[in-house]
This record gives sequence, C-alpha cells and structure tokens, in this order.
Amino acid sequence: MRYEEFTIEGRNAVIEAFRSGKPIDKLFIQDGVQDGPIQTIKREARKNDTMVRFVSKERLDQMSETGKHQGVIAYAAAYEYAEVEDILELAREKNEKPFVFILDNIEDPHNLGAIIRTANLAGAHGVIIPKNRAVGLTATVAKTSAGALNFTPVARVTNLVKTMEQLKKEGMWFVCADMDGTTMYELDLKGSIGLVIGNEGEGVGRLVKENCDFVASIPMKGDIDSLNASVAAGVLAFEIVRQNRFS
Amino acid sequence: MRYEEFTIEGRNAVIEAFRSGKPIDKLFIQDGVQDGPIQTIKREARKNDTMVRFVSKERLDQMSETGKHQGVIAYAAAYEYAEVEDILELAREKNEKPFVFILDNIEDPHNLGAIIRTANLAGAHGVIIPKNRAVGLTATVAKTSAGALNFTPVARVTNLVKTMEQLKKEGMWFVCADMDGTTMYELDLKGSIGLVIGNEGEGVGRLVKENCDFVASIPMKGDIDSLNASVAAGVLAFEIVRQNRFS
Repeated sequence: MRYEEFTIEGRNAVIEAFRSGKPIDKLFIQDGVQDGPIQTIKREARKNDTMVRFVSKERLDQMSETGKHQGVIAYAAAYEYAEVEDILELAREKNEKPFVFILDNIEDPHNLGAIIRTANLAGAHGVIIPKNRAVGLTATVAKTSAGALNFTPVARVTNLVKTMEQLKKEGMWFVCADMDGTTMYELDLKGSIGLVIGNEGEGVGRLVKENCDFVASIPMKGDIDSLNASVAAGVLAFEIVRQNRFS
Repeated sequence: MRYEEFTIEGRNAVIEAFRSGKPIDKLFIQDGVQDGPIQTIKREARKNDTMVRFVSKERLDQMSETGKHQGVIAYAAAYEYAEVEDILELAREKNEKPFVFILDNIEDPHNLGAIIRTANLAGAHGVIIPKNRAVGLTATVAKTSAGALNFTPVARVTNLVKTMEQLKKEGMWFVCADMDGTTMYELDLKGSIGLVIGNEGEGVGRLVKENCDFVASIPMKGDIDSLNASVAAGVLAFEIVRQNRFS
C-alpha cells in the first residue's frame, strides 16, 4: 500500500481533517492557547486517540511550511487506495489463486481494521470496499489493522456488483456470509474465492447476495442474533484456509 | 446473568462512576448548567457513548431519590458476576460437556464484549476472567456483547491457575492459543474443554500456559504478527465447535 505523510496547518484545516476522518498521527498545539477552535481540536484529538504535544510558538514557526499555522500543526498519514487489478496482480506474483475479501458496507472502523488484519494473516490478496456509506481508510482503521494496511491492498469501487461480475469473468466465485445459508463445513470453499461480508446491522445487500454463488452460515448455538462482523469474517476466512491448505 | 438498574446522583458520584467503568445507560443533566464538573461529566459521557438528556431542574427534582442531585442524575446498570460453579451448573442443566472460555487479562472492553458474544454463539457455558488488571463488565463491554451478557455467565476469579487446577479435577482440560503451538487442525479439541485466550499484547502468561494441556496455533500466512484477540478467540472457538459437532 502506498503511504505518505504530510502536514496540515491552521485551525480550520485541522478541524476539517479530523471531521473527514483523515488519519492524523501527531498533533502539535501552541502551549497556553485555549480558545474555542483549539478546544474543538483537542476534543477531536481525544475522540480519535491522537497524540497531542504542546510546544512553543517558536517550535511551531520552525516546523511550519506555510508560515500560517495559527498555533496548530498536524501530521497526517494518507493511505492510497489500490485498484482491483493490483490485488489480482499480487495473487499472480505469488503464483496463488486469488483470495479476496469483499466488504458490503462495513461502517465501524474497528471492524474494518480488524478485517484487514485478518485478510493479511489468512493469506488474502486484498480487500474490496464500496465508495458509498462504508467507512474508508481512517486513522482508527490504520491503527486497528496493526500494520496490515501497509501490506494488504484495499480497493474502493463504485459498484460492488459490477466488480464481482468482472471478477467472475476472471474465474473467481463468491461466497457470502448469512444466517440462512448452508453450514460452511458443508460447502466446497476451494479455488479462486471472494468472501463477502455484510454490514454490521443489515448483513449483505440483496443485489450483492444474488450475485454470490453460495451463501455460507456459521453454525450458531446461542441466545443472541449474530457474531461481531470482524469475528464472523475471521471464522469464515479460516474455514477457507482450512479447506484449501489443510484438507 | 443477574442485572439491576440503580440511580447515581450528584456530580462527584457520577464522575466517580464513569471513572470506575460502571455501565451508565442514561444521563440527565440540568439544562443550562455549564460549570467545570458538569463539563467533565459531559466529556466522560461522550467518551463512553452515553446518551445525555438535558432536562429542567423541576424534572430532576422529581426524579431524585436523595433530593441532592446537584444538576445531574445517572442511571447505571450493574451486571453481577457469576461463580465458576454457576457455569458448570449451566452445562449440567443442558446435559452438555462443559465448554468454557478463560481470558488471561483481556484489557480492551471491545474485545471482551466481542468474546462474550462469541462464547454465547459458540455454545460455551461461561467466561472466566481474572480480577487483576483485566477489564471488567463495563458499559462498553455490555454494549459490545450485543446482549450476550444477559445469557452467558461471566465469573471473575483471583487466581486463574488455581481455578484451572480445580476444573481439571472436574475432568476439564485446557487448550491455549499461542503462535508457537501446534496447528489447531492437528489437535483433538473434543470433550470438556477450556479455551484460554491471552492478553492483547503479551499473549498467555507463563504460569497459565504451563497449566494448559495443549498449545494451539492458528495457521498464519501474512506480513504482520497476530490476529485481533477477539478474532483469534472466534476462530479457535469455531474449530472446537467443528470438531465436536461436525466431524
């Protein structure tokens, strides 16, 4: 994953960066400044677990690239999205059949980060997410992924169904997770496979589900409805690993 | 799990409740009050995703049981811990071999909640956590468990190793998760089993590990170190489910 660092200077720019979910690694605030916008920035920093350092005006002047820091400079990380083709290329490079995660509107950044982490360790070649509604690659996602974001490409596409149709032409097939599916142990989950995980509350969307070759369920035996989305993704991913590499 | 609701009145009492991690469901604050302690309470509420309602002084007076609300009343939920014996009793009632999760110092409340949720759906009879260091049953744990805390008993013990020794006398045996273990598919994970999951950063403690009968690993194939603790717990738990119910 291509990764670069850049600075954001000035109060409105920093507030805007937090609110748009940009991954901010470090925040420098001028010591003693207490006004409203700075309070807002401190609050956003706390919400996002961003490290804050209070420094002198002279220090900020030295760090500033624009000379207009207004008492605050942030260091942001930007993760660039990959293309779907990059994911297929990675599989070809490794001489492996493509194994891809498709996330149909995961909204919680902790879940997205944990799923990217799982994708990396299950040996998947990449993760595909939709542009609308779903959470993107924010600071929380980067942190929760525990470094996996630096290795596992994440592509963002406009239309998941179209992307799945294209990947089917390349020989891939798709299994989605849903409670009304066939118990996962009874399905043949080998080959070039896309694992489709649905939204935390609503599950997999109707059109996406119709485009899946199989619907797999995890056998549940309890009093509540469903597993956490990242746990469900992990359980299904390692059933795919078991069938492909240990049976 | 026994559950009761009670009210907490007054600024210091409410601040103290937040800081000790008590599960606070609802918070009522007197409209227009803006002083320091109230700001602190609002900040804690935001940090804990607690719903806040601003109401008139008259309304608070009506709600108050002590007459000394100082502009703030909180509704807290208290989950009572179960005893280890309650967990074994639940297995006996269901006429099943005991299946227990042992958590060796899980610190993140989201992980603890997700693991209790997984324990419920994997058909485990309970979860055992240690008293020291580890997170207890806070509001975030209750929320992340998605209701599982109302069904799956959680026992808190002073010494995990002693508890494991007692459970061994009852015929249970233990498998812990660690990267240097035997691939989980190669182990026989049947019978009266305790699944031991370690701390997020440090894994399973030495003494606890020495008391396990087997060390199981999830086969990893990636660039980073380890799965999220709740994902690892889920993957191992459902391998136990597969071996006991689907093979």
